[in-house]
Amino acid sequence: MREVTVAATQMACGWDVQANIKVADQLVREAASQGAQIILLQELFERVYFCQEQHADYYKFATSADENPAIAHFTSVAKELGVVLPVSFYERAGNALFNSIVVIDADGHRSSIYRKSHIPDGPGYSEKFYFSPGDTGFMVFDTRFGRIGVAICWDQWFPEGARIMALKGAEILFYPTAIGSEPHDASINSRDHWQRTQMGHSAANLVPMVVSNRIGKEVVGNSNITFYGSSFITDGFGAKLKEADDHSPGVIVQTLDLDACNNNRLAWGVFRDRRPDLYGPLLSKDGGRD
Amino acid sequence: MREVTVAATQMACGWDVQANIKVADQLVREAASQGAQIILLQELFERVYFCQEQHADYYKFATSADENPAIAHFTSVAKELGVVLPVSFYERAGNALFNSIVVIDADGHRSSIYRKSHIPDGPGYSEKFYFSPGDTGFMVFDTRFGRIGVAICWDQWFPEGARIMALKGAEILFYPTAIGSEPHDASINSRDHWQRTQMGHSAANLVPMVVSNRIGKEVVGNSNITFYGSSFITDGFGAKLKEADDHSPGVIVQTLDLDACNNNRLAWGVFRDRRPDLYGPLLSKDGGRD
Repeated sequence: MREVTVAATQMACGWDVQANIKVADQLVREAASQGAQIILLQELFERVYFCQEQHADYYKFATSADENPAIAHFTSVAKELGVVLPVSFYERAGNALFNSIVVIDADGHRSSIYRKSHIPDGPGYSEKFYFSPGDTGFMVFDTRFGRIGVAICWDQWFPEGARIMALKGAEILFYPTAIGSEPHDASINSRDHWQRTQMGHSAANLVPMVVSNRIGKEVVGNSNITFYGSSFITDGFGAKLKEADDHSPGVIVQTLDLDACNNNRLAWGVFRDRRPDLYGPLLSKDGGRD
Repeated sequence: MREVTVAATQMACGWDVQANIKVADQLVREAASQGAQIILLQELFERVYFCQEQHADYYKFATSADENPAIAHFTSVAKELGVVLPVSFYERAGNALFNSIVVIDADGHRSSIYRKSHIPDGPGYSEKFYFSPGDTGFMVFDTRFGRIGVAICWDQWFPEGARIMALKGAEILFYPTAIGSEPHDASINSRDHWQRTQMGHSAANLVPMVVSNRIGKEVVGNSNITFYGSSFITDGFGAKLKEADDHSPGVIVQTLDLDACNNNRLAWGVFRDRRPDLYGPLLSKDGGRD
């Protein structure tokens, strides 16, 4: 039995980078004190979700991984506590800007960077203005506690990404995110749709999943979003094992038996029975090309 | 507003083909009387789920579509009632045997045949003995009441199939199935896992879904399965709108607003933001080839 304890954090964010890092630090330490070995922080936790409006001035938030203060801080913390920390950041690479993540292993070693593949665009979520679509492809990371798949926010809506990470041997999927109300239509509450979609990836791939989302109402210019938290952890059949509420900061912690998950995954037979010879249409936008 | 009313039936099956067709006929008429326009019958409803054990003698059950009694019967019924009926059958084509389906349109016109792509194999579900993996690829069917995607049973576990049908413009997904207990391990109850996986496809593709499963305990030789019914219908966000219980014969009927579903699907933006250029690994078994 190979047990791993995972955690998701959720918190409200302001404009003060150091203050946000301090809150995130406290949550990571809280999760570690409860035994967590892989701890997921939410997407772009260094500041307010600035993508609500389009301001070229905000491009200045982007840095290389080496220059990013959160990565520097949590590299030390990962080593100190012996925990794995995926850290989301706004990446600048030359003249290209990405929504990226680096996985810091329990010895402080930093992985290569994953760049968010799917970039949303809509009222309040103007990400195509801030980020180029990622060019790395979906990635898995070998850490002290297992091989994990990590993708970012909007990626979580796409079965393709989850499947590719599972095909590459991901034993747990991690999705840091920032999602809440829709500024143009107060009647939309995507929370259940959001959870169902991801529980479906977890169920179809027989891989447990950890999702971390922010909370709080954030105002940027003339727009505002109330983020709905509801961070959650599933088992290897897509069932929710732990779930945070929609407004409280904190951590959720869960121990998983990865050997049992791996056995169940093979026993169910779906990976054996896949038909890549029939999946050509997935490589088109409209299903029209094989 | 383009409303379509759909239904799923569920029933117990015996070895008497004509008796099963009669029960199916009654359920189709019941659904039609409640306004249903597209009515889903369960997988291989002409007889007991014979795949529990491996008997070459059962190959004789396979026929061409033209020779199949259920297809003949429901071609008349579809025309009489003005309803669309996907009809599952055991297909013989030369020396090849398939688990197939034909969609009978409301005027009695028969579609080309879809052959089940994913074939399971495990204790009690010995389908690789009876069926070649389908060679048609995933299909959509233009009917009087809309463009529908239809796949079969084990296909329902695969995000790839649902996605391809959605890419090809399916407005509703239909899955006839036969699933229940696991003869080798009474502790396994896949019902919730099964529903979650499919609700995930519905949620991720923003397409409503209709699933029809059989009920009843069937004994074949030294094996037995209790089929768990739980046929269900989702909305365009993957939420269950209607659900049958695990043991009662009957129909569930639901009216869907396909225009609203289509609008929501585009408004959510996921099809716009797909990255086929990154999905190459889906065409491999192990994620290793791009």
